[in-house]
Amino acid sequence: MSGRYEIRIAGSGGQGVILAAVIIGQAAALKEEGMNAVQTQAYGPEARGGASKSEVVIARGEIDYPKAANPNLQVILTQKACDEYSHDTAAGGTVILDDFFVSEDPKVDAEIYRLPIVKTAREVIGREIVTNMVALGTVARILELENLAKPDSIRSTILENVPKGTEELNSKAFDEGYKLMKEKK
Amino acid sequence: MSGRYEIRIAGSGGQGVILAAVIIGQAAALKEEGMNAVQTQAYGPEARGGASKSEVVIARGEIDYPKAANPNLQVILTQKACDEYSHDTAAGGTVILDDFFVSEDPKVDAEIYRLPIVKTAREVIGREIVTNMVALGTVARILELENLAKPDSIRSTILENVPKGTEELNSKAFDEGYKLMKEKK
Repeated sequence: MSGRYEIRIAGSGGQGVILAAVIIGQAAALKEEGMNAVQTQAYGPEARGGASKSEVVIARGEIDYPKAANPNLQVILTQKACDEYSHDTAAGGTVILDDFFVSEDPKVDAEIYRLPIVKTAREVIGREIVTNMVALGTVARILELENLAKPDSIRSTILENVPKGTEELNSKAFDEGYKLMKEKK
Repeated sequence: MSGRYEIRIAGSGGQGVILAAVIIGQAAALKEEGMNAVQTQAYGPEARGGASKSEVVIARGEIDYPKAANPNLQVILTQKACDEYSHDTAAGGTVILDDFFVSEDPKVDAEIYRLPIVKTAREVIGREIVTNMVALGTVARILELENLAKPDSIRSTILENVPKGTEELNSKAFDEGYKLMKEKK
């Protein structure tokens, strides 16, 4: 990797994309030696239309420009978000799509993975509300391969951020997401 | 105001500054006609040291640079955060300090208000965890005076973002914060 790695999580309101990005930023910056992170969400006309995104930039050096101009990794949870946000993926980057809610592959020069993220939250965990934690598990596998963050850094940051009593549910969702991605890569 | 208004909430981990900023951004962008918002948090060496900040930029036009370079409004909840972040307040801006945790006024050319934010959460509401909602109430009064967002936009965004069953607690904390600021201005 170069000095800078950009991640975007995109979906619809209520899928918890902000918390997912907040957790990635905290995990990278606070638990990985020498790493910085800036996490952003933008609201504007597109948010009113129903697609929402949250971004994290992580780097070993200082981060001048906090937005993700060309995300190295995107996790996209709805077709609308895919239409809106997939086009600027970095060449050679990674795009993880929800296999149910995203029906058309984006035309980008990137590795594309279709994974049952929402379905796993709904059917394996039994709670669609943990969709973002399953998504975080898939991100954790990629960040591990990129040598940017350890899965345990992300798992422990999740436990610090979720309501008391829901730790096991969220942790299990994270593990299931990690497994989904690990089976592919 | 000019076209752009920058807000920073700063404190220590666990005071909920991220959620406060997320709510301001959502309220401004999604509930106020023609307004955009970008919300950012940075993690770096300073976050490891215990001071954390979260920023929102709101504007009627497009937002090119998402960080708060010179906040028009700062809410600062700890002395450490005050030492770290108060210096770049915009000239003529507003700084709201927690009257218990911030002991020294910053030397800035701004209107400074010392309010019992944490104390109100702890003693009036009985739950220190709603400190961020009291802080949001103080922000709501300033944004109302600046004609940037209506208090009701922020209150309803709070209700959409807090766990079910805690709406009344959070709403009351918000109202108390609003009253604290309104008594001053």
